[in-house]
Amino acid sequence: MNHPILYSYWRSSCSWRVRIAMNLKEIPYDIKPISLIKSGGEQHCNEYREVNPMEQVPALQIDGHTLIESVAIMHYLEETRPQRPLLPQDVHKRAKVREIVEIICSGIQPLQNLIVLIHVGEEKKKEWAQHWITRGFRAVEKALSTSAGKYCVGDEISMADCCLVPQVFNARRFHVDLRPYPIILRIDRELESNPAFRAAHPSNQPDCPPELPNK
Amino acid sequence: MNHPILYSYWRSSCSWRVRIAMNLKEIPYDIKPISLIKSGGEQHCNEYREVNPMEQVPALQIDGHTLIESVAIMHYLEETRPQRPLLPQDVHKRAKVREIVEIICSGIQPLQNLIVLIHVGEEKKKEWAQHWITRGFRAVEKALSTSAGKYCVGDEISMADCCLVPQVFNARRFHVDLRPYPIILRIDRELESNPAFRAAHPSNQPDCPPELPNK
Repeated sequence: MNHPILYSYWRSSCSWRVRIAMNLKEIPYDIKPISLIKSGGEQHCNEYREVNPMEQVPALQIDGHTLIESVAIMHYLEETRPQRPLLPQDVHKRAKVREIVEIICSGIQPLQNLIVLIHVGEEKKKEWAQHWITRGFRAVEKALSTSAGKYCVGDEISMADCCLVPQVFNARRFHVDLRPYPIILRIDRELESNPAFRAAHPSNQPDCPPELPNK
Repeated sequence: MNHPILYSYWRSSCSWRVRIAMNLKEIPYDIKPISLIKSGGEQHCNEYREVNPMEQVPALQIDGHTLIESVAIMHYLEETRPQRPLLPQDVHKRAKVREIVEIICSGIQPLQNLIVLIHVGEEKKKEWAQHWITRGFRAVEKALSTSAGKYCVGDEISMADCCLVPQVFNARRFHVDLRPYPIILRIDRELESNPAFRAAHPSNQPDCPPELPNK
């Protein structure tokens, strides 16, 4: 049987979320790299637009379907591959996981992704990205102050962790001062050595350039 | 027993999504209006920041907990009040619902909400909002071309419809040309007369000003 195919870009935080989720659930998959910068962005070519009309990564071909949107994909994986759950059993903890997921995936990342920063312009982009990441991380840190155990919500890794780690990487790329967020930093450090997270890291992707810029 | 309390602003599309979901599930609730414009925005005051550290509406006090982030709230309602489901049974249809939800809630709305447009500036804000709504609606229309029945996914109302209708309202506010999106327009028209959607409409909110601007 063919493996699922993940359309991914090494540094895309949305692709990275799905890579972590696939690794945690030990689902084998093949990567089809889509360069977001080569030739003005391969995600904009006609062929890929048929795969993902948002012209973004990731997209996942699995079970005869093409799925897009990282949060929808993680939920699909959770519902079809319940091993190594990404959501807690308790309904209030599930709400907390999804709250952190949404703060990051709708409140932070969309405002600092590549396509928006191109619109903001070279001169202002660093300040713009810092502003929205800082605003979101204040809220994430506040949420974690009541929810975190070893990880974002209690002591089990969840979707929230899949989203947090790539967002911390982005924060560092834009030189956000992370000292006000000790819980975020602790969880990020905790997950650094986890094999599923390590294998999903941009530096371990087949399309990562030999010399890592902005690492 | 006290009703749940929904912190809401009449024209906030994220509050609106939750109002629709509550109405569909026939959950009685009280509204606590938070004006996003009065005194520079009541969502930024210290008291409300304790409710929602993202300084946004909605927030929902329910079952002894305070929930934030509209998509997380809708999932909580679905998991605790399964009557009148907002997600289909079929796992691929669920993925499609969540795909449309995420395109709107992370791909469109965050880029055209009030706080971002303040940053973009008065001069450029209309063009900015139009750009991101148009881009997102192209992808939503494409998704609907294979998923839609009477509503966004098949013939049952889902979370996707709760998100689509407020986004169409926003598109009209920013004078987006909606003619290229016939399926979006048909579904929006279909839902216009639905009682749950009607009651959730901005014009039917307690904090809606007597003379509707930008309607």
